[in-house]
Amino acid sequence: MWEDYVRTVEPYVPGEQPKVSNLIKLNTNENPYPPAPGVFDVLKNMDAVSLKKYPDPTCSVLVDAIADFYHVDSDRVFVGVGSDDVLSMAFLTFFNSDVPILFPNITYSFYDVWANLYRIPFKQIPLMEDFSVRKEDYFVPNGGVVLANPNAPTGANLPLKDIEDIIEHNRDQVVIIDEAYTDFGGESALPLIDKYENLLVVQTFSKSRSLAGLRIGYAMGSRKLIKYMLDVKFSFNSYTMNTPALLMGAAAVKDREYFEKTVAAVIKTREWTKGELKRLGFSFADSKTNFIFARHESVPRDYIFKRLREEKILVRAFNGDIIKDYLRISIGTDEEMRVVIDTLEKILGEFENA
Amino acid sequence: MWEDYVRTVEPYVPGEQPKVSNLIKLNTNENPYPPAPGVFDVLKNMDAVSLKKYPDPTCSVLVDAIADFYHVDSDRVFVGVGSDDVLSMAFLTFFNSDVPILFPNITYSFYDVWANLYRIPFKQIPLMEDFSVRKEDYFVPNGGVVLANPNAPTGANLPLKDIEDIIEHNRDQVVIIDEAYTDFGGESALPLIDKYENLLVVQTFSKSRSLAGLRIGYAMGSRKLIKYMLDVKFSFNSYTMNTPALLMGAAAVKDREYFEKTVAAVIKTREWTKGELKRLGFSFADSKTNFIFARHESVPRDYIFKRLREEKILVRAFNGDIIKDYLRISIGTDEEMRVVIDTLEKILGEFENA
Repeated sequence: MWEDYVRTVEPYVPGEQPKVSNLIKLNTNENPYPPAPGVFDVLKNMDAVSLKKYPDPTCSVLVDAIADFYHVDSDRVFVGVGSDDVLSMAFLTFFNSDVPILFPNITYSFYDVWANLYRIPFKQIPLMEDFSVRKEDYFVPNGGVVLANPNAPTGANLPLKDIEDIIEHNRDQVVIIDEAYTDFGGESALPLIDKYENLLVVQTFSKSRSLAGLRIGYAMGSRKLIKYMLDVKFSFNSYTMNTPALLMGAAAVKDREYFEKTVAAVIKTREWTKGELKRLGFSFADSKTNFIFARHESVPRDYIFKRLREEKILVRAFNGDIIKDYLRISIGTDEEMRVVIDTLEKILGEFENA
Repeated sequence: MWEDYVRTVEPYVPGEQPKVSNLIKLNTNENPYPPAPGVFDVLKNMDAVSLKKYPDPTCSVLVDAIADFYHVDSDRVFVGVGSDDVLSMAFLTFFNSDVPILFPNITYSFYDVWANLYRIPFKQIPLMEDFSVRKEDYFVPNGGVVLANPNAPTGANLPLKDIEDIIEHNRDQVVIIDEAYTDFGGESALPLIDKYENLLVVQTFSKSRSLAGLRIGYAMGSRKLIKYMLDVKFSFNSYTMNTPALLMGAAAVKDREYFEKTVAAVIKTREWTKGELKRLGFSFADSKTNFIFARHESVPRDYIFKRLREEKILVRAFNGDIIKDYLRISIGTDEEMRVVIDTLEKILGEFENA
């Protein structure tokens, strides 16, 4: 029977992308601000005739723009279809040991899915009670290390010196630092790629660059690491990044000023939101991301989630032992967050009076 | 040492995407005609603000448009980042037997690369001398069958009754028919997907839809096959198709009239080119694609390739035992092909007089 040879997997369920409008959508950590003005110009001037040709398989316009932004050489930059593509390619390329790879028990939900998909042995290390990573847990024999920093969905950040300590103890395997959220206040490990040949830093255009709709992720590391990834990538699919993504992505990364301005705005709104959430009785790890992962001291998570949804506010709720009490709330505009706080205040009040 | 755990592969080398202009580019089988007029409209009206949001992970606007075009249900359509993404996902999903999968020794050059990448055992079956597939070669125990039909890079087409005979003999494994070129005169196996639950038909927007630059491929098959592929896809990367690809792809597939008109134009030019190539001393299998795979009776392949390149005409030359004497010439516009024929006539004349 043909079904005997099918690879069956536990599929990841992404955050809802509702087709109804006038929702305040705070469930997938998108940026509330539009992409950089240069992206609008590129889109306006794009010629549909050019789409009959394959895109440049080396993605040089985008790779060079990223390299310029971070002051690294272009042969140390790898781009892919969102950081999921980049990370899964890195798992496939680098994690071929029989010894388990290590990552936290609470982290980005794709790591164990990719490990299962590629038959990579793995071990999930429990976080501390405050959601922090205990670095010594990663000082044991392993086939590789993956850390989201700041971590998802907790938002907690591990200081760069601890990250470096973990890399120091793992010179014989590849260490991947997944920095999807680092622009919102984390400390990037990027300065360490010159020192550690086995360190891969992965970032994305989906959050701080306001381009989730284009699907662009990238990795930076030693020439050797990037070369190995490119070899695997070219054996999958030579042309993954389409022409609109290459052109608009390059335009986005060139505008440092707009990037810094919008990131600062998100951070400011987040800090205001933290204060308000505390006032309303929520607790959370100190987020360095564009979301807050919070639980309420007395009102059940699912009640709040359901009532918010009824009020047309969409946030994210995960299942799982510890995190089932938490809501993940993406940071929107000031106006959106004011509506969220007012609505929460109303919902919590109703609950207490019921 | 971290390099001990790296997956090393033999990377596929794609056709050159030269950055110089005013070349006649006939090396990667792109369509010489622009995309459908609706694609221009969508591009003109696209709002860059929308790109801050993730695309619809179910890709419904594109999936539904493809389903409408082919009169199948939407849950029998899978879309991916070019047919390479779709095919590699199908290999990973369906080919998990210990018995080798089968495909021809001369065919699309990615099949053995994916098989190696995923550690899938495979056996390459020699084509007949005229580049045809002998169907009986596929009536043996195997872990799956993949056939490009029409085949690449030969252009030869296997009649649908032979394809069905092969499927009939392989009911217990998945049979993939890769129909990247079928719109140019092949017989699609699509009508058979209702009859055979294990048949997957794969096509692309890169050739007949003039959208190589957007990276869109798709597969059609039984609900079960598509469901298994979606599960694996969602465990890789939930958001592979970006917003521009979804919107412009849907617009392209909706215009049946333009599609039929441009495909007919390519076929007409191809038939004229065949006559001219014969007149100039070339021989080739009867192509049902948008390219001709031809060898010259007396002038060496590499000489012609080099001289064409000097005359700013780029075609494709593959290495390998039998195919090293052949040029693959994509079909351009009438005007481009007239230049190609005139140039070939000049080059061949020079060679004979040298």
